[in-house]
Amino acid sequence: MASPQPSTPEPIDGVAPGGVGDLDEIRTQQNHFQREFVDAVRAALEEGNKDTLKALADQLYVAELAELLAVLDEPERPKLIEQMGEAFDFAALTELDEQMRIDVLADLPLPLVAAGFAALESDDAVYILEDLSEPAQAEILRTVPTLDRLALQRALDYPEESAGRRMQSNFIAVPPFWTVGRAIDYMREADDLPDEFHDLFVVDPGYRLLGYVRLNRMLRAKRPVVISDIMENVQEIEAETDQEEAAYIFQKYDLTSAAVIDKGGRLVGILSHDDIVDVVQEEAEEDIRALAGVGDEEVSDSVRAIARSRLPWLCVNLATAILASLVIGLFDATLEEMVALAILMPIVASMGGNAGTQTMTVAVRAIATHDLDPYNVSRVVLRETYVGLINGFAFALIMALVALVWFGSAGLGLVIGIAMIVNMLAAALAGILIPLALDYFKVDPAIASSVFVTTVTDVVGFFAFLGLAALWFGI
Amino acid sequence: MASPQPSTPEPIDGVAPGGVGDLDEIRTQQNHFQREFVDAVRAALEEGNKDTLKALADQLYVAELAELLAVLDEPERPKLIEQMGEAFDFAALTELDEQMRIDVLADLPLPLVAAGFAALESDDAVYILEDLSEPAQAEILRTVPTLDRLALQRALDYPEESAGRRMQSNFIAVPPFWTVGRAIDYMREADDLPDEFHDLFVVDPGYRLLGYVRLNRMLRAKRPVVISDIMENVQEIEAETDQEEAAYIFQKYDLTSAAVIDKGGRLVGILSHDDIVDVVQEEAEEDIRALAGVGDEEVSDSVRAIARSRLPWLCVNLATAILASLVIGLFDATLEEMVALAILMPIVASMGGNAGTQTMTVAVRAIATHDLDPYNVSRVVLRETYVGLINGFAFALIMALVALVWFGSAGLGLVIGIAMIVNMLAAALAGILIPLALDYFKVDPAIASSVFVTTVTDVVGFFAFLGLAALWFGI
Repeated sequence: MASPQPSTPEPIDGVAPGGVGDLDEIRTQQNHFQREFVDAVRAALEEGNKDTLKALADQLYVAELAELLAVLDEPERPKLIEQMGEAFDFAALTELDEQMRIDVLADLPLPLVAAGFAALESDDAVYILEDLSEPAQAEILRTVPTLDRLALQRALDYPEESAGRRMQSNFIAVPPFWTVGRAIDYMREADDLPDEFHDLFVVDPGYRLLGYVRLNRMLRAKRPVVISDIMENVQEIEAETDQEEAAYIFQKYDLTSAAVIDKGGRLVGILSHDDIVDVVQEEAEEDIRALAGVGDEEVSDSVRAIARSRLPWLCVNLATAILASLVIGLFDATLEEMVALAILMPIVASMGGNAGTQTMTVAVRAIATHDLDPYNVSRVVLRETYVGLINGFAFALIMALVALVWFGSAGLGLVIGIAMIVNMLAAALAGILIPLALDYFKVDPAIASSVFVTTVTDVVGFFAFLGLAALWFGI
Repeated sequence: MASPQPSTPEPIDGVAPGGVGDLDEIRTQQNHFQREFVDAVRAALEEGNKDTLKALADQLYVAELAELLAVLDEPERPKLIEQMGEAFDFAALTELDEQMRIDVLADLPLPLVAAGFAALESDDAVYILEDLSEPAQAEILRTVPTLDRLALQRALDYPEESAGRRMQSNFIAVPPFWTVGRAIDYMREADDLPDEFHDLFVVDPGYRLLGYVRLNRMLRAKRPVVISDIMENVQEIEAETDQEEAAYIFQKYDLTSAAVIDKGGRLVGILSHDDIVDVVQEEAEEDIRALAGVGDEEVSDSVRAIARSRLPWLCVNLATAILASLVIGLFDATLEEMVALAILMPIVASMGGNAGTQTMTVAVRAIATHDLDPYNVSRVVLRETYVGLINGFAFALIMALVALVWFGSAGLGLVIGIAMIVNMLAAALAGILIPLALDYFKVDPAIASSVFVTTVTDVVGFFAFLGLAALWFGI
């Protein structure tokens, strides 16, 4: 999310003379900061040695500055920013964990925050503002010049995780009748251009989008060529569009940037590839966490925040575990007769749970990446059914043998074998049909699927195994 | 991975006159192809109506062409490509599932494949070639002009999933003493430039990298300015670098492109943002699948391929499930006395498994995104321990009450309560320490963690609960 820096990254081999300490390297081989480097920063902070701290800014890129902040103790963070003053790039805050960012901002004097915000690209400013409380947002927004404030306010009015929230409102728009030469002269003279841009956008007087021109086409065209002759059609994304959908469009068409338009078709911002990389990562991350029942906690969160955020999922799991136990309870007489059933029953449930999770994970991701469509859905459901049956038979055979050898009972082998086939089939069907059904009802399959799937495999597993045993052995 | 197309994507609102059929829309609201559209394509294929099929090429982008291929039946795919002839962009093959791509290529006549490859960007060509068998690779490579062949061969010699495999070997390199004007003239006249590029790379006569110039700086500079005066330092990535590491560098510095160098420091290719988006997605995808024990299967894979790829993980799970059963077996006398234990024991194991999975998922992703470092690791381990204890106590209380009410035994409540605390603590420690240990020993934590974690929580859960019960009730 951080804006590109004016100076280009270069590998940091050592600390420049006059920098912090005399360390040969500020990084360890694992690419973490050397302890000596962090200690030197701390010492400079303690002494209030502003020159040394400012020298840091020349050495560290935005992401590294954020890394340094995270490594420091809580009270040291605002201190570092205050002492670095203008040399501190507020874009670094976008790379911090959310709670850390909120805490740091709350501890900084408002004039410093105002100065920091004035230098931010609009998408970074929105990214920082959106997590703050309304009063804190208002306080900062008051310090921003009117025009910028309106742009930020507009972005904040779009829904969370929408294209409108992620877009940059600083872009280059030119009329279609300009020549290449005039556009180049304009770019040479303008002083409020974005640090980095890859495309010019072409708009009519009402700011309605007409097309775009890629810089490399500009460069290759002669000066008298008219913009409208080299402009191409541009992918438009409505500001309300979910960021995941926007990222999908980007990937599908390998875009470098896309135009974000409001409901009236007016160009309000652009999305660029570096925003999209972050979105892709964020959305995949969300799915991973959702599948494991974890919220959007961060490494720096407190014990209390984490314990609280994990509780709901564990409660849901407790409910389903108790449900499974109730199923077992139906067969208490059977279990009392044959303790071997108690010993073997977790295997049936566990194999079903794992097979179901495999199918479900594939289904959830296939839905997220638009790989399941009306043309292959019935084939995929059928295939999962076959896979469930094949693996069910394979493990039925193995477990029948294990039960036979372990407990010397062919009947027990038969019972566990059949139960295994039934549960693996149930796992396959639950694994594919539950995510599809949730998606159909517009519930995110990543969040809700695993509860349902493991409930099915536990209940079916215990019921099939113990029920068949009760029938077979007549108890 | 597909190369950008010369013509820019535009929303498809309808089929152009003379296109396929008279459909108003070729897409449904869910953004899938309309059945009528697919049927029209099929009919044209049947009739051998090449003009209609070629008209498709003007309407569909690379990714959509791939989508159409996937929707068609297996024998129809090579037929479509043959009939479209030159109008078919082979870059579409990069968007197909691997097995589908291999099958389609095997069914096409070699001259057609050769012509298709000649038009490909080098990274797309490598992407298609790398999955083919050596003889198939060699057969296609023979048809490629010598210079291109050497570049492809070199890329294929780098390890799988390395920067060298993903790079484009078609880039613009200029000497530092050229003026901006000369570079622009060169770009205007050259006819072998990449379709899209964002940077010029500056090299010495030995092709060693000196820096790069962003196009927007070129545009804003006057013609007589010398390249070396506006060039900036460039992020170098060694060709052997793992693609995940390369993606991390890209994201950290918000790069648009990076230079790939060989061991001698010579520029051999560039990585660009659209390659990186794919890598980020791929790597997150790999972690999701690894955590669920699924290999790199694809939606189009056959029953046999899928069943076989899921088997190993299920076998591992069977082994751990049997291990857990052996632990239960130690307490068969206890279970025979108290069937309530058999009913309740899955709850203890299941809660531990879920809590462990939560912690593990967070740890695995924090390691993958470089968010766990020597500065916060002990704090995070400590925090997870506290979280485990807090949630352990919470669920101990709930389950003690449930056991008391259900079975009317305070002793059973006490036993399950203590077992719950023990297992939640074990889950927390296993969830954080196992991924850290695997990472330390350079094993991918995503692949191996969940087996170990659930083994720990199953074994500890059953052992603590049944063992405590045996002690408390003296059986």
